[in-house]
Amino acid sequence: MKGLPGFRDFYPEDAARRQYVWEKWRAVAERYGFSEYDGPTLESTDLYAKKNESGAEILQQLYNFQDKGERNVALRPEMTPTLARMVAAREKNYRKPMKWFSMGPCFRYERQQKGRLREFLQLNCDILGDGSTASDSEMIALAIDLMREFGFAGEDFVVRVSSRKAWMDFILARGVSTDLIPSVLQAADKLERDHEDALNARLAPAGLTCADLREFIAGGSPEAFAPLLADLKARGLDGFVEIDLSIVRGLAYYTGLVFEVFDKSRSMRALAGGGRYDGLIAALGDGSVDMPAIGFGMGDVVLSNYISEHPAASAALNQWLEAHRGCDVAIVLVDEAQRPEALGVLQALRDQGFSVELPFQVTKVGKQFQTAEQSGARHAVVIGSEWPLVKLKHLATRTETQVPHSELAQSLRKGQEHGVPGRSAA
Amino acid sequence: MKGLPGFRDFYPEDAARRQYVWEKWRAVAERYGFSEYDGPTLESTDLYAKKNESGAEILQQLYNFQDKGERNVALRPEMTPTLARMVAAREKNYRKPMKWFSMGPCFRYERQQKGRLREFLQLNCDILGDGSTASDSEMIALAIDLMREFGFAGEDFVVRVSSRKAWMDFILARGVSTDLIPSVLQAADKLERDHEDALNARLAPAGLTCADLREFIAGGSPEAFAPLLADLKARGLDGFVEIDLSIVRGLAYYTGLVFEVFDKSRSMRALAGGGRYDGLIAALGDGSVDMPAIGFGMGDVVLSNYISEHPAASAALNQWLEAHRGCDVAIVLVDEAQRPEALGVLQALRDQGFSVELPFQVTKVGKQFQTAEQSGARHAVVIGSEWPLVKLKHLATRTETQVPHSELAQSLRKGQEHGVPGRSAA
Repeated sequence: MKGLPGFRDFYPEDAARRQYVWEKWRAVAERYGFSEYDGPTLESTDLYAKKNESGAEILQQLYNFQDKGERNVALRPEMTPTLARMVAAREKNYRKPMKWFSMGPCFRYERQQKGRLREFLQLNCDILGDGSTASDSEMIALAIDLMREFGFAGEDFVVRVSSRKAWMDFILARGVSTDLIPSVLQAADKLERDHEDALNARLAPAGLTCADLREFIAGGSPEAFAPLLADLKARGLDGFVEIDLSIVRGLAYYTGLVFEVFDKSRSMRALAGGGRYDGLIAALGDGSVDMPAIGFGMGDVVLSNYISEHPAASAALNQWLEAHRGCDVAIVLVDEAQRPEALGVLQALRDQGFSVELPFQVTKVGKQFQTAEQSGARHAVVIGSEWPLVKLKHLATRTETQVPHSELAQSLRKGQEHGVPGRSAA
Repeated sequence: MKGLPGFRDFYPEDAARRQYVWEKWRAVAERYGFSEYDGPTLESTDLYAKKNESGAEILQQLYNFQDKGERNVALRPEMTPTLARMVAAREKNYRKPMKWFSMGPCFRYERQQKGRLREFLQLNCDILGDGSTASDSEMIALAIDLMREFGFAGEDFVVRVSSRKAWMDFILARGVSTDLIPSVLQAADKLERDHEDALNARLAPAGLTCADLREFIAGGSPEAFAPLLADLKARGLDGFVEIDLSIVRGLAYYTGLVFEVFDKSRSMRALAGGGRYDGLIAALGDGSVDMPAIGFGMGDVVLSNYISEHPAASAALNQWLEAHRGCDVAIVLVDEAQRPEALGVLQALRDQGFSVELPFQVTKVGKQFQTAEQSGARHAVVIGSEWPLVKLKHLATRTETQVPHSELAQSLRKGQEHGVPGRSAA
């Protein structure tokens, strides 16, 4: 039996890497004062198909089906519609602005390729109920600090900032009819990726060409971004940002600032992206709740690839993995007849919060030590003929003391205080 | 727009409760030396339909569908088949015994009712590659310590221990043909829940009655459990366990010990359950890998309900929620002209690991303090006319000092050392 294509198995070494990304995401979001929320894995397909919602590409790639109750449902392709639905239903319960984040699986039905899977993890951060430049800047600063948290510096990534509003102003000034706007935006989003002829064909009904779009991008007016850049400069983060009107974003619902985080290596992959979506909450509720909103998403697949290629980022990961490996104490049992004593020590230390292991089967003492060291255990406790005294051995330094078993937790804690490394705080 | 029936929205207050369960689950599993793994949310339906796999009830309740590539797929109803598939593929890479845990969403298509949802979270813990009583006991001890971690004591829950092997011996001794065994086990599993006549009708083809099953249960021989009980006694945990042959477990693949954790209040809900499934890995691989295995699952729905009904458990939860509420520092900005200075302090403190908030909009000073206190912030930093000096105020004690802004991180850290509460370690 095999897993499905585009889906991942997380063996322990993979799950540990995922947990690293998870913990960093959470740490930075909480440092910015964001509160976690989450929605269901499955939603009504309607949530994504509604007018003004998502975009053509995301609908094509929707992992949707009809369930046994004949409901049209979809595995969530992104979090924003769920968030907008939740906020429209209960916004009265929360003080504004709301700063919310979520971390969880999202799904797209698309061909598997490097950096693109059918199930991936995504961090989403959103500020709701504030339409100021200060919240635009807070959002971009958060994206920057997420990258810095993994060990990436200014030479490694850039946040490209653009404005969906500037795009709309340009398109409307050219007299494009409303129904053609989505296809113009989609063409603009694909400008550097799709074939020129195909794009021109797509733009023709709107009376536009790729050359027109390039002219608009080249002539973009950076003055409109001055307040944002001043705010970022006060944070010392303006050096991570470039104004670049070629950024459009594929999703239909953006209304103002849009941005993407790119790696600066040759590949120029997008690591995160988002923007302002001021109309979406009214569109997904009954219309009675309307509030400005801005958010972004960061997926784990491209990010994890970039971490593993980047020396400083992968060194930080490896250091974390090493610190999280192995248990605090491996109990070494000399004589099987003392298993009851060993089980008592095992339970007493676990009750004090230490991670502890004891072999299930009769095992030679040398083999027990070998297993303890290979698994990264920090201490061995040898239970033998000196009982109720036991040997406490620090495996890295090979220092050894003899203590009454009842004082083991105390000795382990003292060792930690004195800088002998240990993961658990008891 | 509404969410689907049987699926949950996690607003921040719900997500915090989920995170509490999540952190406790992880802490106890790691204390027992378990390593995290995970599989995909979606699997081939075949994985659950294979002979010797899962059981009739789980197949009826499978949340399965045909995807756009005409594959028969299912949202995972439980983790064991995924684990067995993963282990069969790569067991050579891992030292035995393997102690693995996972935490994530599972899905069942069934009518929504109290304690039963279509999407729920489940902790799974498994020991692979060891068939000893010592690993049986380790598994039960882990289940007990999970309950104790949430504040439940011996009067609150019981682990009922039984043996699928004893059931098989009984059924085979009665000359039941192999194809009828699953329906006998299912009837036994429903003995106290379904209607007597319906059960007798189900048992008739096997030449058995409810009375026969009850006689077997009453005559169960506890001697076979003596080694297990001795191991648990050495851990001081035997008081949490009862031998009870009425426990059968609905899943088809169990082969030896089976157990369930029940709350002892009137409702007697099952909070967790599992058992030994020694043949499953061979059945799901190509047969070349065969190893003993034991595991259990604990869902979040019944557990969370029980926590909220139980005074000590809900007090522990509330204490955790209170400690995890609010940021380390709320910056109070007296004069909007000093926003750049405030942004510099904001970034400097976040860079040092503190969680910090600054209002996006011009806000009266009194209102800023009120918001800080209501949100549970631990300190306020007032930026005003004394700049580069700032006021550092500890909100619970209302003590106040004036410090240069460049020494804020140091002062906050000193406060934490001296027992002034703060969540972040910088």
